Amino acid sequence: MRDVTKDNLTDVFMGYLGDDVNPRLREVLGSLVTHLHAFAKEVNLTHEEWEKGISFLERTGDISDKERHEFVLLSDVLGLSSLVDMINTRPEGTSSSVLGPFHISDAPKLAIGGDMKGRFEGPVLLSEGIVKNTEGEPIEGATVDIWQTAPNGLYSSQDPDQDTYSFHGLQTTAADGRYAFTSVRPVEYTVPTDGPVGEILNACGRHPWRPSHLHFIVKAEGYRSLVTEVFPEDDPYLDQDTVFGVRNDLVMRYQTMPAGSFPEGFELSGTVNDEYLKVQFDLTLVKT
Amino acid sequence: MRDVTKDNLTDVFMGYLGDDVNPRLREVLGSLVTHLHAFAKEVNLTHEEWEKGISFLERTGDISDKERHEFVLLSDVLGLSSLVDMINTRPEGTSSSVLGPFHISDAPKLAIGGDMKGRFEGPVLLSEGIVKNTEGEPIEGATVDIWQTAPNGLYSSQDPDQDTYSFHGLQTTAADGRYAFTSVRPVEYTVPTDGPVGEILNACGRHPWRPSHLHFIVKAEGYRSLVTEVFPEDDPYLDQDTVFGVRNDLVMRYQTMPAGSFPEGFELSGTVNDEYLKVQFDLTLVKT
Repeated sequence: MRDVTKDNLTDVFMGYLGDDVNPRLREVLGSLVTHLHAFAKEVNLTHEEWEKGISFLERTGDISDKERHEFVLLSDVLGLSSLVDMINTRPEGTSSSVLGPFHISDAPKLAIGGDMKGRFEGPVLLSEGIVKNTEGEPIEGATVDIWQTAPNGLYSSQDPDQDTYSFHGLQTTAADGRYAFTSVRPVEYTVPTDGPVGEILNACGRHPWRPSHLHFIVKAEGYRSLVTEVFPEDDPYLDQDTVFGVRNDLVMRYQTMPAGSFPEGFELSGTVNDEYLKVQFDLTLVKT
Repeated sequence: MRDVTKDNLTDVFMGYLGDDVNPRLREVLGSLVTHLHAFAKEVNLTHEEWEKGISFLERTGDISDKERHEFVLLSDVLGLSSLVDMINTRPEGTSSSVLGPFHISDAPKLAIGGDMKGRFEGPVLLSEGIVKNTEGEPIEGATVDIWQTAPNGLYSSQDPDQDTYSFHGLQTTAADGRYAFTSVRPVEYTVPTDGPVGEILNACGRHPWRPSHLHFIVKAEGYRSLVTEVFPEDDPYLDQDTVFGVRNDLVMRYQTMPAGSFPEGFELSGTVNDEYLKVQFDLTLVKT
């Protein structure tokens, strides 16, 4: 079109699409470009602002590598990652929540009742629950992939003092659907602020904190996979997670258990004589 | 907020912004995020599609460097660059159009009537016009920065056979406001298709062609700078520029001039004995 205008540009764009374009691509790209154009017109975007945006994307690309996923972080702090989680959550199951960049795909096996605390100091946490379906029936053979920060607020991949697999474990449920492990209470931490995304948080007057949490990926045959996190109700950042990951049904409570009450059936049984923390959190999967 | 939902997420995002955030940042980022969230909800974006999008941005970053601006190209083929041009164009002046990635900031000086054709073969093009204001008065001392492809469709920075400054020149108008130079008729060309943006064009069934054009940046004290391009009316891609750069008032006509009619006052005067092409195109600046 030689007479492209502000008003017909989006239609001209759609007219450029070939007749045999994948219908879902047409839908997604059409919606994306329609909103992109509407945004620019709504704010009367200037050339200087456009240049700032391009430079921001280029710098985000520059800082990214196999270890650092700055575009994921951008999606996280703009709420897009959480929105995709919420769009794809089924209300009858446990809510999904941000995967984040610290998952390891080959976590070591962790027996039921196994320990992830190891040599690390901190409050002993006993975490357990049932993997079940929406009828409340336990699911046998579900894999529960668990990861969290060390007591210093760092994941193993961020911390030269940890082994690759510190605070990562993969458990498989038996007929009772139960997962159970011990660890150290995870702590709140900040997302990386030394890159372009940190500049945005700073310019917006936003803090970079996430409330402490335990990560889970739960998979079982015949069920939708669940990627989620659970958060203690007393965390100072519970109501202001910088990546919008908290959902009502993902808030749990650490019970302080009296000295001498530590149960049998755990790798740490017989060695924990003091008070400890306990959390019971069931994970509900939805059939595919 | 612990009870973030699809419906309140955008409000929660806005609530995270500090009270003393720059008002323009609040406006631009607020609009951008509102549209981003609306897009994801409108198409029910899946995790797989989100991952494809993140991977696309990461690969766009990977291929970018100081010479290659793949994010600019992305903005170009989605129509955003042209939209920003149209938003910021004043209707009483010459329309602006895409800067593109091939401008050189230190082009050599070109006298009025100077030549950019040099040793290159092709139809001689005589291009001239008046730089004027919206009252039609000529502007003295305006700089006219001109660049174009060689006859092989490549800009100097893409082509090892050209000098750095081939087909780049910077002219300054005298009291009559006139610019005038000779060159070779530019040719249509494709945007780079060997990167992630090429994948989009391909998936959309879109061609990568731009109609042939002459680039101008015109600056004069007291006037808004003009970044533009002009296109011949008989170009096969005039109605389907892949970066949406054509505007009605930027379409011009090459007149075929008879042998023996080449005028005085040009570096090539006396050497052009055959037919040649001539284009007269005035450039109108708007006061700041």
